[in-house]
Amino acid sequence: MQVEITREYVDQVEEAIERQDRDFILSTMADMHPADITTVLYELDSNEARYLLDLLPSELGSEILSDLDDDIRNEFLDSFTSQEIARYVNLMDSDDAVDILNEQSVQTREEVIALLDNEEKAAAILDLLHYEEDCAGGLMAKELIKVNLNWRVRQCIDEIRRQAEQVERFYTVYVVDNRDTLLGRVSVKKLLLSKDDTQVKDIYSEDVISIESYKDESEVVNVMQRYDLEAIPVVNIQGRLLGRITIDDVVDVMQEQAELSRQLMTGISENVEEDDSVLRISRARLPWLVIGMVGGMLAAQFMGMFENDIALLPALALFVPLITATGGNVGIQSSSIIIQTLSSNEVMFDNIGKRFLKVLLVALLNAAIISLLVFSLTYLFRRDISLSLVVSMALFSVVMLASLMGTITPMILDKFGINPAVAAGPFITTANDLLGLAIYFGVAHLLYSL
Amino acid sequence: MQVEITREYVDQVEEAIERQDRDFILSTMADMHPADITTVLYELDSNEARYLLDLLPSELGSEILSDLDDDIRNEFLDSFTSQEIARYVNLMDSDDAVDILNEQSVQTREEVIALLDNEEKAAAILDLLHYEEDCAGGLMAKELIKVNLNWRVRQCIDEIRRQAEQVERFYTVYVVDNRDTLLGRVSVKKLLLSKDDTQVKDIYSEDVISIESYKDESEVVNVMQRYDLEAIPVVNIQGRLLGRITIDDVVDVMQEQAELSRQLMTGISENVEEDDSVLRISRARLPWLVIGMVGGMLAAQFMGMFENDIALLPALALFVPLITATGGNVGIQSSSIIIQTLSSNEVMFDNIGKRFLKVLLVALLNAAIISLLVFSLTYLFRRDISLSLVVSMALFSVVMLASLMGTITPMILDKFGINPAVAAGPFITTANDLLGLAIYFGVAHLLYSL
Repeated sequence: MQVEITREYVDQVEEAIERQDRDFILSTMADMHPADITTVLYELDSNEARYLLDLLPSELGSEILSDLDDDIRNEFLDSFTSQEIARYVNLMDSDDAVDILNEQSVQTREEVIALLDNEEKAAAILDLLHYEEDCAGGLMAKELIKVNLNWRVRQCIDEIRRQAEQVERFYTVYVVDNRDTLLGRVSVKKLLLSKDDTQVKDIYSEDVISIESYKDESEVVNVMQRYDLEAIPVVNIQGRLLGRITIDDVVDVMQEQAELSRQLMTGISENVEEDDSVLRISRARLPWLVIGMVGGMLAAQFMGMFENDIALLPALALFVPLITATGGNVGIQSSSIIIQTLSSNEVMFDNIGKRFLKVLLVALLNAAIISLLVFSLTYLFRRDISLSLVVSMALFSVVMLASLMGTITPMILDKFGINPAVAAGPFITTANDLLGLAIYFGVAHLLYSL
Repeated sequence: MQVEITREYVDQVEEAIERQDRDFILSTMADMHPADITTVLYELDSNEARYLLDLLPSELGSEILSDLDDDIRNEFLDSFTSQEIARYVNLMDSDDAVDILNEQSVQTREEVIALLDNEEKAAAILDLLHYEEDCAGGLMAKELIKVNLNWRVRQCIDEIRRQAEQVERFYTVYVVDNRDTLLGRVSVKKLLLSKDDTQVKDIYSEDVISIESYKDESEVVNVMQRYDLEAIPVVNIQGRLLGRITIDDVVDVMQEQAELSRQLMTGISENVEEDDSVLRISRARLPWLVIGMVGGMLAAQFMGMFENDIALLPALALFVPLITATGGNVGIQSSSIIIQTLSSNEVMFDNIGKRFLKVLLVALLNAAIISLLVFSLTYLFRRDISLSLVVSMALFSVVMLASLMGTITPMILDKFGINPAVAAGPFITTANDLLGLAIYFGVAHLLYSL
């Protein structure tokens, strides 16, 4: 990374492209990591990017294409012929190749596969295209190193030498029988430490954690994280070794999941980024705004039933923001804690009664403190004991109920297979607004009519 | 994983411990992964856990201890003598050892280090104890495989065989000069593919991405993720090779960061989990509840200035929840989008004016749609054109301003080195409540006095 990527450097690259100065580009990019060249590419328009990619060696180009953001890559590849795409796909790992081909039209996809020189790669890609993108099969690559149970160490090392040309990274050598059933693994370390004529079956370890191809990507993340794996073999239902998932792909899945749940929690319905179009961002934000708006209108309708009470005692209206905000805050806090438990890998045996008791105790403590403070402050400001009583009693009930709602909603959503993070967003806030107002005006009506 | 971890199995283990049935425990746990035994341990009381750990081989025990949750481990180790701790620490990687020793009292720490058989390990631990826990130096382990520039392949393989006994996982062999300056790397693959008498300097690659020991852990995550690394060498300011960080530790950091920012966004001030004590959970939740409460009381004070208006036109009060909820929702959505950009690795050169223009355009579009809907609905329900006008105009301004606030606040916090996720939580909601009310009653006052 001799050349730092700055606005100035990007400007220089643009100028170099304009005056077709290949030397400047090739010399400054010679020592650059593909990920850094990708960053430069993001700043260019599509013609410039195209010029740059054509200039770079195909191997580097294929790494850059694998690295690009889906949307941008998709747009970019529109100007490529199938021959050109095939040239790059030929050099990619099968999982990256499939990611790209999945974004193309069926026609382009078939043309590209037909044009691949590397037959083994073509077969691997055809095989991988069958899997859903968000399951273990959709994440795996076919490139891995495997040896037969009956081989000797010498033969393994030769095989590793041969296979290693295809496989960029290897951590573990998988051990299979004649029918490709995954039996275990043997580390390169172990092979290096063993005598040449030792048989694999005498040194391999049966401790290998694998995952079935149909398992969901979130399960892949959980298993790899739980067992600190840098790679996991993927097997079919008969235990045959199909492929391998590496940690770098899983890190990307983790990142996506974290972003997704943040967006769900903040009421954004699609996966948008700041550089998406105005229309797309608006559309992603609108659904929750409309739901919130409907909630607000319902609240208005509901409060309309107490319009006479408000006319008689306008001070009642002043505490509406306090009630709704507290309900919202408590609800979101409660959801956050239960969502963390639901999404963590730890097995839980705690019985449900004990958990709710705890939720109630925490709520009770905080409700008591907050209500007491509000009672004192309201009395201090307004010198009205019954108003202070109404506000603080309502607040107490709101904290208790919002805690329960905030805990139960994510649990129910999770049971139905819906991402519980949805519940921590505007949904809880909207529901708690209505709940809080019902309690507040209910309590007020009761106390004042006594 | 022949034995599945179920409530029943945990019960059986507890019974086996009571009747001191070593065979049952050892036979069922023989093929279990340490992470699974850790799960069982979580379900036992500390005496049972102690019995179990004493029973297992020290190597397994040391893996389980490394795996345990900080809080639980800390409590658990209280009953251990320094000798006992030293026995396990002796078998751990230096980074795990340091994590554990950092939690102990200075006395225990020094006793344990003095008791270590492995002098190389003791020196490594002493060295690592100097680094802050949340920087690259605090994440690294001293165990790595390095070879000298001037060695031949044969010598390297011998050295790898020797060092490999210490280093559990190795991916890359680092190349250094006589002064331990990191020069590059050579893959095991390359070594296996080269002739025995080839010199390292003829086959090694200078492309090695390293990180300085003082860099923050979030930077380690960014770099490893950006360049898809499974391990990164750590160097000092002179470029000397100090240690190595592996991806499994970085995955844990990512997880912690995601949890932390979720908690910040949901107004929880400490890192709490469902199984923490009632008091601890209450305490973590209280600060934001109190801030929200103060916000609500301020809102009440503010609305108090319009008490006469409310008495004259109680319908005005009905739309307060709509105004505050919409302001909150829009603010949180806006923050979420800008926080995602701020926390992503992509370099951004977009000028600030262009970004704000976009924020304003999105806000304009959504504000127009929502206000129009609210105008129509309010008119439909209340048949009051000026009320409908007040509510929808106020809502329009609230959406515009909340978008700006929600975008600017995280950017300012980020500039001052504060985690911008703080802004997406109750802070934005509380501020927007006040802002929304000010606009609403301001607009109402203006329009009605015309």
